Amino acid sequence: MSDVAVGLDVGGTKALAVLVTREGEVLDEIRTFTPHDAQGGAGAATAKVLAEQVATFAQRHRLDPVDLPIGIGMPGMVRRDGRLAFAPNLQTVSGASFPDLLRESLGAERVYMENDGNCAALGEYAWGAGRGIDNFVMVTLGTGIGGGIIANGALVRGQSGFGGEIGHMAVQARGALCGCGGYGCWERYASGGGLARLTSEWAAEGRLPTLVRLRGGADGVTGEDVTRAAREGVEEAVALMRDVAWWLARGLANLVAILDTGNFVIGGGLSVAADQLLPSAREFLVDLTFGYDKRPPVVVAPSDLTVHAGALGAAKVAFDRQS
Amino acid sequence: MSDVAVGLDVGGTKALAVLVTREGEVLDEIRTFTPHDAQGGAGAATAKVLAEQVATFAQRHRLDPVDLPIGIGMPGMVRRDGRLAFAPNLQTVSGASFPDLLRESLGAERVYMENDGNCAALGEYAWGAGRGIDNFVMVTLGTGIGGGIIANGALVRGQSGFGGEIGHMAVQARGALCGCGGYGCWERYASGGGLARLTSEWAAEGRLPTLVRLRGGADGVTGEDVTRAAREGVEEAVALMRDVAWWLARGLANLVAILDTGNFVIGGGLSVAADQLLPSAREFLVDLTFGYDKRPPVVVAPSDLTVHAGALGAAKVAFDRQS
Repeated sequence: MSDVAVGLDVGGTKALAVLVTREGEVLDEIRTFTPHDAQGGAGAATAKVLAEQVATFAQRHRLDPVDLPIGIGMPGMVRRDGRLAFAPNLQTVSGASFPDLLRESLGAERVYMENDGNCAALGEYAWGAGRGIDNFVMVTLGTGIGGGIIANGALVRGQSGFGGEIGHMAVQARGALCGCGGYGCWERYASGGGLARLTSEWAAEGRLPTLVRLRGGADGVTGEDVTRAAREGVEEAVALMRDVAWWLARGLANLVAILDTGNFVIGGGLSVAADQLLPSAREFLVDLTFGYDKRPPVVVAPSDLTVHAGALGAAKVAFDRQS
Repeated sequence: MSDVAVGLDVGGTKALAVLVTREGEVLDEIRTFTPHDAQGGAGAATAKVLAEQVATFAQRHRLDPVDLPIGIGMPGMVRRDGRLAFAPNLQTVSGASFPDLLRESLGAERVYMENDGNCAALGEYAWGAGRGIDNFVMVTLGTGIGGGIIANGALVRGQSGFGGEIGHMAVQARGALCGCGGYGCWERYASGGGLARLTSEWAAEGRLPTLVRLRGGADGVTGEDVTRAAREGVEEAVALMRDVAWWLARGLANLVAILDTGNFVIGGGLSVAADQLLPSAREFLVDLTFGYDKRPPVVVAPSDLTVHAGALGAAKVAFDRQS
């Protein structure tokens, strides 16, 4: 049994590699840009980057890749067998089996793959804001919304391993078109992408006059403009952030009804705006949650592990599967 | 360890009691109207009816209530400790602890309570359409929508025991007002109550001309009229049933995204219209489900245990907790 594991978190922009102890201590880390070329077949370019990261750790820390437990967190639909069924944001890797690719390039025998939101949930459960909480939902607010569900102390992988795709729960039937082809998905309202979409909508409707004037047109206003202006107290921006928080609460309330989740851990890129979103979302939850007053107060906490959550969780997957 | 258990399923209209073996065989059953008077304190009148049902079984089958495992399925928010936090359709019992009440009246020591949708899920998992399926969702289509979630082979009770209230997932934010005080809950679209609501709406909008003529006015048309007319092929009624099926599929697709549920078991009163609803719902799922073509086909099956599902599941709860 190895004392350390590698966790790899592959994002649309960067791949983060961490070397982790069984106590969740990060001994080393590497960040590399994620390649987006399809040469060499599905996932080959990305697998090469990951293999280099692992090889660097092996060299620096005198480890043998053959025995090293390696976990990979990947955005998209990761099957229980470790094959990537579909990755909308990483088109060049769809269908790839990274365990096989890393076995070929490194001789690594212990490579496991899991959805990145599920990894983040496992990471927070082991070493972060979900520690000791046997029923909670990890919500990662990035361009979309990912997540992972811990119920009865275990990750809900579901039939094929695709569990936790909470961003594609429709909260507005026949609502805004989503990248997945569906309509009204939660992530079209309460993610970074949702903020951007609502910003365009509000700007076009004349509801962001100050920002439109500042940017010289409705097209120029971005989600970042809104979070910045909201932080400075610009009323129209504060109102828009409250709308995003309302939609965030709408989805969270659904998950409370379905799963009786008492705790949420919020991570992902948009969680930099957590101080603007979470207080309002908590407030909206009171009205939006079925039987709110019959429950203990729902806790909505920011991620403890922040940018490391996915990579740490991937390492946890590797520890768990190889032990 | 007792070879038999009593399962009690308390509905808004009737209470069904079954005497069940460990193999799920129903040895005896009794149906009694559910009392709705509040005399004697929360739940006293209902507890009296249940105690009589148990006493009748005990007498007929020479059993001692003290040792008999007794499970109670109750609509509403049942806490893990067996207390009923809230029962919107059984106002006179909110707050009651039936385990305590039956202990007092019968001396019964082994009384356990669980939400009725959760009971139905456990019943189908043990002896019905969910047998051997470690990830499925029970959906009971009655006046509202209840349910229970089996994930990783276990019931998802959640933090307080309120898990599985899938009918109060909002599928249309700011949509139709629900009895729970919320807006756009799934059960306002895809249950018996949802059918009734849509029927009134369609009738008022002039979209059910044949039925309105038949009933002498828009107010006279009921959900039952629609299911009957749809069965006879009346086009406007078929169209309305397809709309209900669409909403049913909308909620099911959400649960697939969240839980990666591969199987649904559909029960409850409206499932008498299963032959009209389920084929259309299956068809709509293809478009509404995130990554449908990446998954094995989603199975939507009618309940095996039908009207006995809740009572059988309540008995299963009693077997499981006392063993």
